[in-house]
Amino acid sequence: MKLLASLTLAAVVSTLSVPAMAQFQKPEDAIKYRKAALTVMAAHFGRLGAMANEKVPFDAKAAAENAAIVEELSRLPWAAFGPGTDKGETRAKPEIWTEQAKFKKGSDDLVAAAAQLNVAAKTGNLDNLKKAFGDAGKTCKACHDAFRKD
Amino acid sequence: MKLLASLTLAAVVSTLSVPAMAQFQKPEDAIKYRKAALTVMAAHFGRLGAMANEKVPFDAKAAAENAAIVEELSRLPWAAFGPGTDKGETRAKPEIWTEQAKFKKGSDDLVAAAAQLNVAAKTGNLDNLKKAFGDAGKTCKACHDAFRKD
Repeated sequence: MKLLASLTLAAVVSTLSVPAMAQFQKPEDAIKYRKAALTVMAAHFGRLGAMANEKVPFDAKAAAENAAIVEELSRLPWAAFGPGTDKGETRAKPEIWTEQAKFKKGSDDLVAAAAQLNVAAKTGNLDNLKKAFGDAGKTCKACHDAFRKD
Repeated sequence: MKLLASLTLAAVVSTLSVPAMAQFQKPEDAIKYRKAALTVMAAHFGRLGAMANEKVPFDAKAAAENAAIVEELSRLPWAAFGPGTDKGETRAKPEIWTEQAKFKKGSDDLVAAAAQLNVAAKTGNLDNLKKAFGDAGKTCKACHDAFRKD
């Protein structure tokens, strides 16, 4: 339970420190930025998934490095979903702007799960990584199902 | 001189810890990833530039947050310039692969400058930020001039 408690604390602290830096010249800049941040995060999340799913050998150092990047990147995309960024080269559904509280909760859930994933990866234990990876993956899927056009 | 020494040490330590995680399924995945990492880095670098150039008021907290992201992102693109990633949706010049030592030095220079920028931003002093931003900008330009098609 000690691990769980510290995972939860880390997640809360991390959520509180989400920076709000919505500074884009044009809506298309915001769209490009948020897609880029999600692309980088997904690449590193995928490397953790390959370990969690035992497609590649578990490498504790690589897991810790990738999870740190996922945590850092998990905070970034959300400030770029501001007003007027619903049109253009984006698969964002209108519900993002009509259901803002739900969208906010979805992104907060990911940020918290990414922080837990980083803590879990740093334990150097594959079972911890598997559990935290699965939990984080659910937060990705929940938002994609609700808020992303396929 | 004490500040300069700690800036230099931070830069060296950071350069040594660059992770080498070249794990892409397809060349186009690597190209998409490196462009995304550079896009995110450029967005945060631009926010520091707006402060350094006094287009927006200096905000020490925002400067520190943006510089931390720039430092983290500065390490990522380079592992994605592997063999076979010279063709496709990229402005990368062939010289990246024919002048690997020079390209490596260019990316190392940016990583070091980004680490110095992060240290400078955390001093909360606008003059330090201006100096470090200018130095980092030179490393961007050097590589773009040598290795990026316009």
